[in-house]
Amino acid sequence: MPEIFQTAAASTLDAVVPQQMAFDTPLPLQSGKQLSAYQLTYETYGELNAARDNAVLVCHALNASHHVAGRYAGQPKSEGWWDNLIGPGKPIDTRRFFVIGVNNPGSCFGSTGPMHTNPDPAAGGRPYGADFPVMTVEDWVDAQARLLDRLGIEQLAAVVGGSLGGMQALSWALRFPDRLRHCVAIATAPNLSAQNIAFNEVARRAIITDPDFHGGHFYQHGVVPSRGLSVARMIGHITYLSDDVMDVKFGRSMKETAPSYSTQAIEFEIEGYLRHQGAKFSTYFDANTYLLITRALDYFDPARAFGGNLSAAFASARCRFLVASFTTDWRFSPARSRELVKALLDNRLPLSYAEIDAPHGHDAFLLDDARYHGVLRAYFDNVARERVASGARHV
Amino acid sequence: MPEIFQTAAASTLDAVVPQQMAFDTPLPLQSGKQLSAYQLTYETYGELNAARDNAVLVCHALNASHHVAGRYAGQPKSEGWWDNLIGPGKPIDTRRFFVIGVNNPGSCFGSTGPMHTNPDPAAGGRPYGADFPVMTVEDWVDAQARLLDRLGIEQLAAVVGGSLGGMQALSWALRFPDRLRHCVAIATAPNLSAQNIAFNEVARRAIITDPDFHGGHFYQHGVVPSRGLSVARMIGHITYLSDDVMDVKFGRSMKETAPSYSTQAIEFEIEGYLRHQGAKFSTYFDANTYLLITRALDYFDPARAFGGNLSAAFASARCRFLVASFTTDWRFSPARSRELVKALLDNRLPLSYAEIDAPHGHDAFLLDDARYHGVLRAYFDNVARERVASGARHV
Repeated sequence: MPEIFQTAAASTLDAVVPQQMAFDTPLPLQSGKQLSAYQLTYETYGELNAARDNAVLVCHALNASHHVAGRYAGQPKSEGWWDNLIGPGKPIDTRRFFVIGVNNPGSCFGSTGPMHTNPDPAAGGRPYGADFPVMTVEDWVDAQARLLDRLGIEQLAAVVGGSLGGMQALSWALRFPDRLRHCVAIATAPNLSAQNIAFNEVARRAIITDPDFHGGHFYQHGVVPSRGLSVARMIGHITYLSDDVMDVKFGRSMKETAPSYSTQAIEFEIEGYLRHQGAKFSTYFDANTYLLITRALDYFDPARAFGGNLSAAFASARCRFLVASFTTDWRFSPARSRELVKALLDNRLPLSYAEIDAPHGHDAFLLDDARYHGVLRAYFDNVARERVASGARHV
Repeated sequence: MPEIFQTAAASTLDAVVPQQMAFDTPLPLQSGKQLSAYQLTYETYGELNAARDNAVLVCHALNASHHVAGRYAGQPKSEGWWDNLIGPGKPIDTRRFFVIGVNNPGSCFGSTGPMHTNPDPAAGGRPYGADFPVMTVEDWVDAQARLLDRLGIEQLAAVVGGSLGGMQALSWALRFPDRLRHCVAIATAPNLSAQNIAFNEVARRAIITDPDFHGGHFYQHGVVPSRGLSVARMIGHITYLSDDVMDVKFGRSMKETAPSYSTQAIEFEIEGYLRHQGAKFSTYFDANTYLLITRALDYFDPARAFGGNLSAAFASARCRFLVASFTTDWRFSPARSRELVKALLDNRLPLSYAEIDAPHGHDAFLLDDARYHGVLRAYFDNVARERVASGARHV
C-alpha cells in the first residue's frame, strides 16, 4: 500500500513512555578518559519499518531532553519540547518516520550524569558531581550511535537538531558519513564565537562561584547553587531572544504605574520575567550539567583538526543537508550558517539552505513559525518520497 | 589677541589635582527623597575665561569618574578616562575650553556615595550602604548645576557625554535649556531597551544574591560581594565590545595548544580576559554604586512624562546638538541615536549627526578612532569660533 502524503490534521501522541538502555562497555571520550558503564534514557515515536530505514534521530540542545514529542499518560501538559514539529501529521510525521529522542550522558533528565553514583571505588558511593568526565559533541554522537546499534538501525533517514542539537547533527555527518542520509542543522554554527564562549563563561562563573556549589559536590551538602543557576539562566534567556521581540513582549513596561525607586525590587516587567525563569530553572536543572553542556558547546569545532579549514573538515561528509537559520538570531546568526553552507558547497554536497525571516531570535527554532515549519515539512516530505522511490536501497 | 586654531602637537596635562566642594543644602531627588549634606569631587582643565563662557562639562558613564583628563603628579600612568579626547591640542582643546569633570553622587570615586557615613542618626554612624537614596540622571544633572553655580558658570559652552554620560548631556538640554549652548551625546539612547534593562538586572541579581552582599550592608562585615561584582563586570564587558572585535582580539584562541577538558579551568583566551577584568573591577568598584548607576540607566526616559512622545519631550530644548553613534555598537545602536535625531528634527533644533563606522562596539566612544575624533575636533572648533565671533554674548 502506498504511503499517503497529504497533510492530515496534526495530533499529539499520547501515552509516550521513556525507555532505558544500559551499556556495560565504557565509552571512550575525546578527552582520553572514558565513561564507565552508563545508561541512556530515550523515547521513540512512530514505528520502525521492515527495512529499518525510516528512523530520524533528534538531538537536544542545552536544557532539553529525550522527551521530544507527545505526552505522558495522565499528564495533559507534558508535551515534548519539539511537539509542534514532530507527531502524526506534523512536519516530521511519525506516521512515516520512526523518531528517536535520546538524553545525552552528562545531562540531568535520566541518562547517566553528574548526579548519579560515581562507580570509582575512591568516590565511596557518592555522586559524580564535578568528577563526571567532560563530554564533547563527538562523544554524544558516539553514545547515540551505540544506541542505534542496539536498536538495530544501521542507517538513519535523518539526524535533526537545533542549536547544540544542530552541532550533533553536523558531527554525525562527519563521524558516521554512511549512517545518515540527511543532516538537518537548524540555528546552529560550525563553532562558537568568542562572544558565545564569553556568555557561557559568565554563566559558569556565576555557578562555580556560588558558595552552594561546593566545588561541584553540593549534593552531599543538601544544597543547590540556585543563585548561580538563576543568573546563568537569565543570561541564557537574554541571548535566546531577539532585541526586537523583547521590546515587543516587554519593552519598558513597569510592574506598577509609578517607579518605586528601588535597586532591588522588580520595577520592569522584563525583570520579573527573567527572575521567574531563573528561579524555575534552578529547581530542576543540575549545575554540573550546565557546566558540562556549555563546555561541549565551547569545544565543538570540526575545522580545528583541519587548521581551521571548515571545507576540509566536511570533505568526509556524504549525506544531504538542510541548513536553516533565523534572521533575528544573534546567538547563532545566519552568517554562521552561511559559513556552513559555503563549506558544504565547496565539497559539492547536496544542500538546501533556508534563511527564515522570523522575529524571535534563537528561540525561533523551537517555535511554531509557519515559514519554518513549511520548510521542514517540504524537506521531510522529500525524505519520505525518496525512500519510497528507492525502495530498500540502504538496508 | 586672537585665538589660535591650528592643531598643535597634543599633550597630556600634568599635575592634575582633584578638588572637593561641600553642599549643605539637601538635594531634592526625583524619588521624593533628598540627599542630605553631600560633597562632590571634581577636576578642571584649562582656564575659565573672563566671560566665563568657555566651560565644557563632561559627564561620566557607569564606571568612570571626575578624572577625565591629565595625569596626577608622580603617577605617569594615571591618565584620565577621556585623555585621548581632552587636553592641550586635543579635539576638546583645554587651551580654549575650561573642562570640568565631576564624580556623580552615589558613585564611589570621591563624591558622597553608599560607602560614606549615613547622616541619619538611626544609622548609628554606619555607611549608607543600601540606604543611599536611588538617584536618577536628572538628579545628577541637578547636582552638576549646583556645582556650576558655585563655580560662577551661568552657561556652558557644551555638555559632553558618552553612554550614560550622553543621557546626562541630553537631560541638561531638557532641564536647563538656557544653561548650555551645545549638547554632545555620544553612543547613547533616549532610554534603555528591554534587552539593556535585562542585562542590568542580571548583573544586579549576581551582586544582590552574593552572600557577601549582606543586603547592601557588607561594609560592616568586612567583606565585598566580589563574586557578584565580577560576574556583573564580565557581562558588562561582553556588551561593550562588538562580536567582531571579540573575534579579532580573542577568537577561539586557547590558552594551551590542546584542550584540558575542564569546565573550571581557563581554556579560551576570552575566558582569561573576562575573569581578569571581573576580578580587577571587584577590587575597586562599590557594589551599591553598581546597583544605583544601573538603575539610573534603567529609569532614564525623558519621553515617559510625554506619553512616550520623544519629540514632545525635546520641545523645551534650545541648544545645538551633536549626536554620534558607532556602527558596531549593539548596546546603544545607531538606531537608538536616530530616534534622538528624529525628535530633534521634529523640533527644528540645529543638529549634527555622525554615524561612525568603527569596529569596537560601544567601547568605541572611549577609543582614539580617527574618524570619531575628527568629528569632535571639527565640532569643537566651531564651538570655539562661534564664541569668538559672538563676543561675550552670553554673559
